Amino acid sequence: MNYKNLFVGVDIGGTKISIVFFKRNKIIKKIKLKTNSLFGPKNAEIIIENLLDYKKNIKRIGIATTGIIENGKWSVLNKKIIGNFKNFPLTEHIKKKINKPVFAFGDTEAAALGELKFGAGKKFSDFFYITISTGVGGSMVINKKPFKKIANLVGAFGHMVIKQNGKLCGCGRRGCIEAYASGNAIDKILKKTNKKNISTKNMLINYKDTKWSMKIISEATTYIAEGIVNVNTLTGIRNFIIGGSIGLSHNFFREIIKNTKKITKQNILIIKAGLKNDSEVFGCLAKS
Amino acid sequence: MNYKNLFVGVDIGGTKISIVFFKRNKIIKKIKLKTNSLFGPKNAEIIIENLLDYKKNIKRIGIATTGIIENGKWSVLNKKIIGNFKNFPLTEHIKKKINKPVFAFGDTEAAALGELKFGAGKKFSDFFYITISTGVGGSMVINKKPFKKIANLVGAFGHMVIKQNGKLCGCGRRGCIEAYASGNAIDKILKKTNKKNISTKNMLINYKDTKWSMKIISEATTYIAEGIVNVNTLTGIRNFIIGGSIGLSHNFFREIIKNTKKITKQNILIIKAGLKNDSEVFGCLAKS
Repeated sequence: MNYKNLFVGVDIGGTKISIVFFKRNKIIKKIKLKTNSLFGPKNAEIIIENLLDYKKNIKRIGIATTGIIENGKWSVLNKKIIGNFKNFPLTEHIKKKINKPVFAFGDTEAAALGELKFGAGKKFSDFFYITISTGVGGSMVINKKPFKKIANLVGAFGHMVIKQNGKLCGCGRRGCIEAYASGNAIDKILKKTNKKNISTKNMLINYKDTKWSMKIISEATTYIAEGIVNVNTLTGIRNFIIGGSIGLSHNFFREIIKNTKKITKQNILIIKAGLKNDSEVFGCLAKS
Repeated sequence: MNYKNLFVGVDIGGTKISIVFFKRNKIIKKIKLKTNSLFGPKNAEIIIENLLDYKKNIKRIGIATTGIIENGKWSVLNKKIIGNFKNFPLTEHIKKKINKPVFAFGDTEAAALGELKFGAGKKFSDFFYITISTGVGGSMVINKKPFKKIANLVGAFGHMVIKQNGKLCGCGRRGCIEAYASGNAIDKILKKTNKKNISTKNMLINYKDTKWSMKIISEATTYIAEGIVNVNTLTGIRNFIIGGSIGLSHNFFREIIKNTKKITKQNILIIKAGLKNDSEVFGCLAKS
């Protein structure tokens, strides 16, 4: 690679790691890798391995990650997503090996920022970004600024309890949105039916609009819709941007809109993320 | 009354109207009246009747009210609280008869503002105020400022759904906090038991800590606790101030704390409103 002074945005999700090289606001190169979902810190090694060859091209690295991040230290919110660990020095560890400045923040906050600066959020003063992927996350933008949470919980939309005494969630509470509407949750439902060998992704691509898949999708999206209406009720926010591989799939997205309309008369706008699966890395770029 | 240039703060709740005369920051006189709970606009007449004698003493009037208020126009959020009406010109109507400037806003927003400027909220940069009375309401303060909701929903904390497909709420949704933890909701539960003639207030005063009353209180406060943890999860706010006649009663308040600790390990502080039942009228004063 001939480019110099590249900014690298890294997104560590529950199933995929995305490493994206930016020259100003343009993407030069993308690397997609599988997440080590058993032990989170392992992913730092995977990222380092893939960056070493490009050391001389890199100016700065920004990381968006699932879980909780405080002062560069990485911990787990839902231990079913990426293993169980606490206070791993993510930024320090990568900086030591690559020798460039590194920062890290939550993936949903990153995605919301990406959509605000470069995506579907450009036209809104206030919106709520929701990602539906391996887990479920969400982040608020108020007056064109990401809402600074006082606690450093990341993507905690998914851990709003919608069904008291409902399913046990990986976070320890019962009845969270994530326990019903995440990729992990839907995979589990599929395994309990006679569609054992079908994954959520597989279902969304190959079995869309079949009666049995629509039943599963309708149930999951009802939880997302209840969450959207709860956020609207509590904050008054009317604009919602949906991202994440599951959220962006056509029939899942359509059902979110349908089920939201069923439970509220409020004028709520729900649209897809403008940057699709790159919202998080564009968010890193926006923060750099 | 010999005083001149008094500010009048009025609080229209689901069961009581409170009219408070202020000279600077001191209360000079209080009038307590029963709310006409069948038809909300009737309460404007009740207020006017009680203010006419003091016309010459009054400089300005501020009203805190249950329901939805937009540009001085008053509508209902939960029609079981104060009747069913829409866009009643509350401020205009009172101004016409008393001939002084009148403003109006939501009662929970008012209470939060009162606590922020004169009460238990003085020491916090961020807090969430919750009132538990005939209905259940809540309002956020962020960076020492009441959080300006984009929609003019008032006290919508009570309409967060905690139990999907739960009890039908007066707002039209199912499973809202208000459907389980409000004075109205607990009255209804009491009427269905063999304690038919006992009201919530009566129970809290005369039957506190009996086995049957604690069972009812424990169930209701579990919903408040789930709501508190949801707000903390979504916004990161750690300080909660509880007001309203039910919320302020000793054993109800104690159970909120106990049940919140049961469902979260987060460090959450829950305290009583410093101004007790006057948070709303002090909020009017703060806004004047």
